Amino acid sequence: MIKKSAEIKEQVIPNFKDGEGSVSIFHFMNEQEVKGMGRLFAKIVVPPGSSVGAHTHVGDMEAYYILKGKGLLSDNGEEVMVEAGGCNICNDGEMHSLKNVGDDDLEYIAIVVYSKQKEL
Amino acid sequence: MIKKSAEIKEQVIPNFKDGEGSVSIFHFMNEQEVKGMGRLFAKIVVPPGSSVGAHTHVGDMEAYYILKGKGLLSDNGEEVMVEAGGCNICNDGEMHSLKNVGDDDLEYIAIVVYSKQKEL
Repeated sequence: MIKKSAEIKEQVIPNFKDGEGSVSIFHFMNEQEVKGMGRLFAKIVVPPGSSVGAHTHVGDMEAYYILKGKGLLSDNGEEVMVEAGGCNICNDGEMHSLKNVGDDDLEYIAIVVYSKQKEL
Repeated sequence: MIKKSAEIKEQVIPNFKDGEGSVSIFHFMNEQEVKGMGRLFAKIVVPPGSSVGAHTHVGDMEAYYILKGKGLLSDNGEEVMVEAGGCNICNDGEMHSLKNVGDDDLEYIAIVVYSKQKEL
């Protein structure tokens, strides 16, 4: 199956996870398509100054793979700079947040995978 | 957990899936990290003229999310042009291939998710 870029709609979310500004989410796959293995497969764009607020994962884990830009990431409270080609893995029970501290958009791939496959 | 870009090694594979030329794979997550939910979470770079050969998925499915470049994708034998922001979903039992037909690198995110969670 092909989804053309025009079919992958931009979802603008203000104060995502109680963060600052807004982020844009482009979902390229959903929970049904992965047979209940996870719930988020998307490119996320964070404009300069905006952020994804701190949140803890319960029952799932999330990977961020940075595509471009400059981010300040909290990895369970430890602050680390992230940039293109870097990755953050936030396991079940762990916490993270991410703020764009650069002058250009911060873009990354976000993948949320359940700890146990969900029956749909 | 943070993986800096320098820790995500480039794996160069010639004739990937019997394709032409070579491709570079940057694995940002592995099977253990997703508790057996899948086996490939990577950025793949296909140089001009190179390709990923046709292959059928058995017991898993794969999503390609195109980041940049111009590709000719076979979606179960139907040829379609793909470009940045587009997506291909190849379900369990289906076939796909992808050739870089542009002048610049073709880059995409590849995710392979099992049809049933694997016991590790």
